Amino acid sequence: MNPVKVIKIGGKVAESEKDLNIFLDQFTAIEGLKVLVHGGGSIATKLGEKLGIKAQMVEGRRVTDRETLDIITMVYGGLVNKQLVAKLQSMDCNAVGLSGADLNLIKSNKRNPEPLDFGWVGDIEKVDHQVLIALLESGITPVIAPLTHDGNGNLLNTNADAIASFVARALSQHAQTELVLCFDQPGVLNEGKVITEMNLLLYRHLRDTGVITDGMIPKLDLGFEALSGGVKKVRVAGFNTLSNHDQGTVLAS
Amino acid sequence: MNPVKVIKIGGKVAESEKDLNIFLDQFTAIEGLKVLVHGGGSIATKLGEKLGIKAQMVEGRRVTDRETLDIITMVYGGLVNKQLVAKLQSMDCNAVGLSGADLNLIKSNKRNPEPLDFGWVGDIEKVDHQVLIALLESGITPVIAPLTHDGNGNLLNTNADAIASFVARALSQHAQTELVLCFDQPGVLNEGKVITEMNLLLYRHLRDTGVITDGMIPKLDLGFEALSGGVKKVRVAGFNTLSNHDQGTVLAS
Repeated sequence: MNPVKVIKIGGKVAESEKDLNIFLDQFTAIEGLKVLVHGGGSIATKLGEKLGIKAQMVEGRRVTDRETLDIITMVYGGLVNKQLVAKLQSMDCNAVGLSGADLNLIKSNKRNPEPLDFGWVGDIEKVDHQVLIALLESGITPVIAPLTHDGNGNLLNTNADAIASFVARALSQHAQTELVLCFDQPGVLNEGKVITEMNLLLYRHLRDTGVITDGMIPKLDLGFEALSGGVKKVRVAGFNTLSNHDQGTVLAS
Repeated sequence: MNPVKVIKIGGKVAESEKDLNIFLDQFTAIEGLKVLVHGGGSIATKLGEKLGIKAQMVEGRRVTDRETLDIITMVYGGLVNKQLVAKLQSMDCNAVGLSGADLNLIKSNKRNPEPLDFGWVGDIEKVDHQVLIALLESGITPVIAPLTHDGNGNLLNTNADAIASFVARALSQHAQTELVLCFDQPGVLNEGKVITEMNLLLYRHLRDTGVITDGMIPKLDLGFEALSGGVKKVRVAGFNTLSNHDQGTVLAS
């Protein structure tokens, strides 16, 4: 199969009409096969607050109870996903919005409730690369929401970076694959400056010395896993630098 | 192409877990090619009320303002659609949830604001039957939400009966097609009894004498339009009588 790019955007980008348009202009300008994976950002949190659904926390992390799962399904699977698809169609990009349940694309397992019960959260078991390949080879651009299913009729809240990493790995068995994790910063930062290249040794050093913290740690773990799993190139970059192949932080094995 | 059934269920059925399971058992038991079109029922209205979004009415009919469109996109395009798909997957039915924007499946026109402005409501212009045929022939069951798009990046609220009727008509050019409009009554009723067969003459008589009223009128109009547009058989039936081919009200030209 021809080379393919898997692009992930964070929810924050989708929340700003201006940022989203900048991103989509660059995304649609990418020639060749591509997949978009999106998060949902704070829209779901805001909707939950408006509905008076109190966030349940376990050790500082949010629990996906049934009501929260419904909100995530509405906001990520419905609002964000369908608006992205409608915009892409207007830009002559033949998109199809998918959750992991659609076409049985991504099966996951509800996370073990021991030692901590995070509720309806899924850890990915399997991405059906055949489905993605068939869509891509028909000229279709999959737009994947951060929702998977357990095969028993339940949807599961699933991290968008993880979906992007697993999708890229699955495709890399059949095509030269690049993974770009886009967000609202120009790359991984050290004292405000972008780290242009990072390997595992440097990553571990910066993590252990507290330069890389919080949400960047699981993001980079997933990036390096993609790289060791066969993905040709992994980049953490600003949402507005898609067109420049070398901007952001390039991961090296 | 092999014969195909287009089944529409109203939102009320989707609201009751018990009714939905009865329906899905019968739907998945249908052999051969099939398409599911669903409404959203009162879940969207209830969510709107919880969020304090006041229904705007014009001559007794609801207006789809921007906030209402967002709610419909969340509830119909997200919650109801993805839950149906996850349930169908667990029953070994390879479903894909679609709005009219996905794969550019259904293009519609925003309804003329004169004489009455109903807001973000779409009247169907075109169903891409090639997309449906490709999915059906790959063993996939499309599950269509009552949302279309205008091709300019906007989603549009679109009547689910209209989608079912247009989809059936588009498919009828390529396959023997049956349309079943399912709801929470056993068929079109006259003094509590199901009218087993109805042609245009009888329909007009019953409508003009006030036996058939309200929402049943556009539903039957769309049913008769499907029939005259090439659909082989049109039935208005209870959601729990799918397996019996002759239950409900059969429309005849």
